[in-house]
Amino acid sequence: MIYGHYDVQPAEPLDKWHSDPFAPEVRDDNLYARGASDMKGQVAAAIDAVESILKTGDLPVNVKFIIEGEEEIGSPHLGPFINEHKELLACDFALNPDTGMTAPDLPTITYALRGLAYFELRVYGPKQDLHSGMYGGAIHNPGQAIAELIAGMHDANGRITLPGFYDSVRALSAEERAEIARLPKTDQWYLEQTGVPALWGESEFSAEERVGGRPTLEVNGLYSGFIGEGSKTVLPAYAMAKISCRLVPDQDPEEVHQQLLQYMEAHAPKSIRWEVINMVGGPPSISDRNSPWAQAYLQAAESAWGVRPAFKREGGSVPVVTDFQQTLGIDVVNMGFGLPNDNVHGPNEKLDLPNWYRGINALIHFFYNLG
Amino acid sequence: MIYGHYDVQPAEPLDKWHSDPFAPEVRDDNLYARGASDMKGQVAAAIDAVESILKTGDLPVNVKFIIEGEEEIGSPHLGPFINEHKELLACDFALNPDTGMTAPDLPTITYALRGLAYFELRVYGPKQDLHSGMYGGAIHNPGQAIAELIAGMHDANGRITLPGFYDSVRALSAEERAEIARLPKTDQWYLEQTGVPALWGESEFSAEERVGGRPTLEVNGLYSGFIGEGSKTVLPAYAMAKISCRLVPDQDPEEVHQQLLQYMEAHAPKSIRWEVINMVGGPPSISDRNSPWAQAYLQAAESAWGVRPAFKREGGSVPVVTDFQQTLGIDVVNMGFGLPNDNVHGPNEKLDLPNWYRGINALIHFFYNLG
Repeated sequence: MIYGHYDVQPAEPLDKWHSDPFAPEVRDDNLYARGASDMKGQVAAAIDAVESILKTGDLPVNVKFIIEGEEEIGSPHLGPFINEHKELLACDFALNPDTGMTAPDLPTITYALRGLAYFELRVYGPKQDLHSGMYGGAIHNPGQAIAELIAGMHDANGRITLPGFYDSVRALSAEERAEIARLPKTDQWYLEQTGVPALWGESEFSAEERVGGRPTLEVNGLYSGFIGEGSKTVLPAYAMAKISCRLVPDQDPEEVHQQLLQYMEAHAPKSIRWEVINMVGGPPSISDRNSPWAQAYLQAAESAWGVRPAFKREGGSVPVVTDFQQTLGIDVVNMGFGLPNDNVHGPNEKLDLPNWYRGINALIHFFYNLG
Repeated sequence: MIYGHYDVQPAEPLDKWHSDPFAPEVRDDNLYARGASDMKGQVAAAIDAVESILKTGDLPVNVKFIIEGEEEIGSPHLGPFINEHKELLACDFALNPDTGMTAPDLPTITYALRGLAYFELRVYGPKQDLHSGMYGGAIHNPGQAIAELIAGMHDANGRITLPGFYDSVRALSAEERAEIARLPKTDQWYLEQTGVPALWGESEFSAEERVGGRPTLEVNGLYSGFIGEGSKTVLPAYAMAKISCRLVPDQDPEEVHQQLLQYMEAHAPKSIRWEVINMVGGPPSISDRNSPWAQAYLQAAESAWGVRPAFKREGGSVPVVTDFQQTLGIDVVNMGFGLPNDNVHGPNEKLDLPNWYRGINALIHFFYNLG
């Protein structure tokens, strides 16, 4: 079964495009259009590969396509649809061309995606905002209390301190680490992309290992008191933090929720009240790098590009992969022919055509390898 | 010289008043009107005391009044005016009836006011907001970094860790602590007023000592990333905290600014950039409890109420007192007849008339005691 989506992100800002985003235009070796890379081009490559085999003979395997139009808004109807149509969708495995190549000329299999657990932590102090002169020194400031709680969630080596947080984390094998070390996303690349003066995180792992293979706890938002221009001497009644964890196999979002509650019960001072709102969550996913399907694509891509493909772990989350794995009980091969500089979601999105033709070639090889 | 101000806070919300805020009305023993307690009533008491002495003979001392109309907006023109008219304002000391009584039947001399130093701490991470999945684990999150920095500004005993922060702090004497222990603002009072589950702060001092006699560092505001409803998996580029210190004698706002910079230089991690904006500041003030003026008022108030007045330190700041002390080189006796339940700045502000008459009586005694 081959997955795809035909919906795209809005094309705005239109004045930044050099050609009409919905009238594809070829310039040099690139096709410019909204959705060219994410992911109409990838869907077209799969259809073209099947068509080209059918023109010369029979497909060596049976193929189903599942193509949706809601991916960019989080696929709200796809999970229930899969659950209701398990027989219709029955298959040996799914091919998901909605991930890309980690560099030009380096075909890539994304074999792991991180899960997500998202919380809002609320800290309550006095029943109303107070005058910081009349009460400061006697009342625990919720802005300070939430800072103390957040600071305690990592140790000095960047490790997360929620009780038992790493118990379920599947270790990166030496073989995986060697694969990740082949990738062009070096620590230097992370420095240049982000402009930070120094990287941060668990010191025994490279940045790419930390992003793909290790779980994180991030402050996505932080609020307390007066944040306008100027000064106001308020002792706030309330503080809030949005906190999310990216999870790796075999962590579970609900388990992490319980670990956060345990951390708060152990560390929240008696001078404040608190609550944790459990907002959204999705489990991590991992695919078998040695499955027949992964190996078939590996060999096909090596034939097309003349280089051994890279195996990578992706830091983000793609919920449909977990739906396929958990609801249909099948494995997923995540690949694709998009390049890091395709301007996905931005103006002048493009598809590298020579690379795309190699991709169609790889898929033709793939179907024959499977057969 | 007697200080006063005739301006008032806005009377809104008008529908919460039981009578017209600008048509004084006596009900039971109280006069209800905006400014009745803060501080037209206090100014009137001083004028009435002088007038009543003049009706029966000569004033035993020379009196100057300095009455302004900008106190509620921070007296922007008073400091420069004092500076330009030192000769006109020359006097032995100032009486400031703009502080109140700490409890009914307990006349009070406020002999110390805290100063203020207000900062904005800005922490910069990546050059733009990042996808928390694609970069989380490799980049130091500015929301987390600012939490770590804020958490480090106090130790486990509630003491501020800025280098040298307590070096200039004048210790509370055993006599002062005994005076403060007489005040009705017990730890229990602070608990009830604020509704917090437990108090917080330097454990070797009572809440009232901490608020009046000890310096503080407060988070007045805290911001980073996404703080709207719902979830957004952003790794923020920026975090900000409004931080203010209430200062006690003999601290200096600029000294504290330098201490904060030193703290940041010592503790800010290499993975972020930061800056400290120095916003507003005012020095603390303390008056001599044993000056002839303070003792004269002490005896006068004891005569009027039949109870020895309390000496208290106030947690807030009254900049004009420092102007008098520093520009004119005179001491200030801070007193007044307002009560804690006068609804100052709120609807139905009132003045307790029997107490107010005792106040006029106290002032008459005071002028004779001085003479």
